[in-house]
Amino acid sequence: MEKNLLMGQSGGPTAVINASLYGAVYAARNQKDSFGSVYGMLNGIEGFLDDRYIDMESVKKAGQLELIKTTPGSYLGSCRYRLPENLDDEVYRVIFRKLKDCNVGYFLYIGGNDSMDTISKLSRYAKKTGSEIKFVGIPKTIDNDLVGTDHAPGYGSAAKYIASTVREIVLDASVYDNKASVTIVEIMGRNAGWLAASCVLARKFKGDNPALIYLPETVFNQEAFIQKVKQNLEINPNLVVCISEGIHDENGVFICELANKVEKDTFGHKMLTGAGKYLENLMKERIGVKTRSIELNVNQRCSAELLSEVDLKEAIAVGEFGVKSVRKGTTGKMVILKRTNYDPYRVEYSVADIGDICNKEKAFPLEWITEGGTNISEEFIEYAKPLIYGNVKLPIREGLPEFAYRR
Amino acid sequence: MEKNLLMGQSGGPTAVINASLYGAVYAARNQKDSFGSVYGMLNGIEGFLDDRYIDMESVKKAGQLELIKTTPGSYLGSCRYRLPENLDDEVYRVIFRKLKDCNVGYFLYIGGNDSMDTISKLSRYAKKTGSEIKFVGIPKTIDNDLVGTDHAPGYGSAAKYIASTVREIVLDASVYDNKASVTIVEIMGRNAGWLAASCVLARKFKGDNPALIYLPETVFNQEAFIQKVKQNLEINPNLVVCISEGIHDENGVFICELANKVEKDTFGHKMLTGAGKYLENLMKERIGVKTRSIELNVNQRCSAELLSEVDLKEAIAVGEFGVKSVRKGTTGKMVILKRTNYDPYRVEYSVADIGDICNKEKAFPLEWITEGGTNISEEFIEYAKPLIYGNVKLPIREGLPEFAYRR
Repeated sequence: MEKNLLMGQSGGPTAVINASLYGAVYAARNQKDSFGSVYGMLNGIEGFLDDRYIDMESVKKAGQLELIKTTPGSYLGSCRYRLPENLDDEVYRVIFRKLKDCNVGYFLYIGGNDSMDTISKLSRYAKKTGSEIKFVGIPKTIDNDLVGTDHAPGYGSAAKYIASTVREIVLDASVYDNKASVTIVEIMGRNAGWLAASCVLARKFKGDNPALIYLPETVFNQEAFIQKVKQNLEINPNLVVCISEGIHDENGVFICELANKVEKDTFGHKMLTGAGKYLENLMKERIGVKTRSIELNVNQRCSAELLSEVDLKEAIAVGEFGVKSVRKGTTGKMVILKRTNYDPYRVEYSVADIGDICNKEKAFPLEWITEGGTNISEEFIEYAKPLIYGNVKLPIREGLPEFAYRR
Repeated sequence: MEKNLLMGQSGGPTAVINASLYGAVYAARNQKDSFGSVYGMLNGIEGFLDDRYIDMESVKKAGQLELIKTTPGSYLGSCRYRLPENLDDEVYRVIFRKLKDCNVGYFLYIGGNDSMDTISKLSRYAKKTGSEIKFVGIPKTIDNDLVGTDHAPGYGSAAKYIASTVREIVLDASVYDNKASVTIVEIMGRNAGWLAASCVLARKFKGDNPALIYLPETVFNQEAFIQKVKQNLEINPNLVVCISEGIHDENGVFICELANKVEKDTFGHKMLTGAGKYLENLMKERIGVKTRSIELNVNQRCSAELLSEVDLKEAIAVGEFGVKSVRKGTTGKMVILKRTNYDPYRVEYSVADIGDICNKEKAFPLEWITEGGTNISEEFIEYAKPLIYGNVKLPIREGLPEFAYRR
């Protein structure tokens, strides 16, 4: 009897993390004789420890498998559970006993840096104890901060959402073009600027908004920012500025923390707010200009209407490639994308050692940050543009997209 | 020689205000012998007072007319300019002299309550002075608070954006379904709850999120809210709550003002924030539950990807109907939509006296607010559902929608 395949999702969701799940289930079903059952753990390894998992055949039977492909969020539920560093910890014995009880031979985990740490530890424990179970990671992150891969599925759709939405915000912000205004757009990405940088794709012509772009890879100076805004307002009455949520001062203090440090509400409680809202208030006070701040928030990672077709296809493909890899005996690896050509854009799939990937963060290249930390280079545009190509037709019912529900 | 047609846009933009402009220009071009030139004032009546207007033929020649149809924002620029109450004011003489200089015989103004006030005053001044110029208003508002019409173009697309986005936020908010959380979504509409109510369309099954919905038409009580959230968390671990930005306490104080009253930053300055952020902090303090707040912000009114096809068609149609109306000699009126059938949904176009419309606000019906001000009735769902039907295929280039630019 063939061994079972167990898969799970971990970390923050993306618009295509379920497409990878779909790809993996689809590939496993296409190699029916190679696998026993295909199980999905609920809430990742944390749920598996509580014996919470489902047979993916039930998803297929419920007619939900095709819908999963374009459903945002993590269909199986997610977790943020860090396994102990010490492989002698009791929890490893428990996990491997449960894996044995379920006759699991193959283990796929769809996630980012932290999730790859789980793959690293489980594969090392397997090696140490002589277990035959194969462990492979499937990359996903909107932040694009996974090392060892050209980019990560989830990033392209988030970048497309940001570029498209910022382009619309620019039009909206320009309707009173006879009055000065500043619009500050706050974009996700606490430590890496990949997401914030993608707003540069919104520009339609030379001199178009967003006029200023700030990433967390450089130091953010408030006084320099005020001067830049003043200068730009002279040539552009409706200024749109994009900032990463992770912008920080020279001491590494996040700009959002500057606000949060001092805010107290009626009850003397802390009032938490974001970097965009803080700068909005700063602009009003220091320049006296009409200012609005917009936090793009979770829509960046869960908008199905703005799925990138390229991203969706790649997300499915890494899931499929992961299944093929574990079946061939690969373990302790993550599926990676290699860009083999820029124009026309082409990628190949491969695997890389998990130890070289987990717990590392791929920062945005400093050489792609230009104009004193306020603009993004052409190289980035060439890198990012192919990742947002293609629109996806969603299943629609009564004017709204139909999604898969696990109930 | 036929008289010229002058049109303008005023007030906040919507996703389809340019579709009405397109419809009007298109209709005027189709009745070429009926009109001289077709002019567009830049920044509405305010810009016209500065002799700022363009010949719409130049837009056609620049190949931008078709693109305008699905471009968010106000292509001609907008204004918030209130004409004086006293019709003897000098400004009226100036406007009518300029209208005469431009040989204008017909005047269309696309806007909401305040813009209809402009149509009311100009048409009254014309009557008083024996001017032959015809003035007609074209309705637009995301808020849906225009009286005399079943609904206003702009509302359907905003409602579709809200319903679709909230459905996605619900999925995103449920990925850690083994841990309690509250997500607060803040929706536009300071005085009218039409927009906030549309989040009810996001629900997919009985008991689905958003679990609680608060409109500005009822009093918001913080303690009652805390109790409701606690109760709901017992049956729904990942609670999504939608609130209107305009929720207020029994004294009429906006919840966002409660936050703003007391906030001071490092420099002793006021720190302005929204109702959602205020309640997020309240939840953390009083219930100690993981809470996130999301302000849908201007994307509600400028998302081209989530245009409702019904809304787009109606926006074009009211523009066309406005042109036909002024040409027939109608003046001092606004184009209205009459729903003649619910299922299948059908509307007819007509006009109504501007005096019965301007400066009034259509509140959300109190009888459609249920469960002690925390839910919305089936009657609203029947009313709103047809307005969000149909998806619109946008012109796409390099993965992003192409829009019209006035440069």
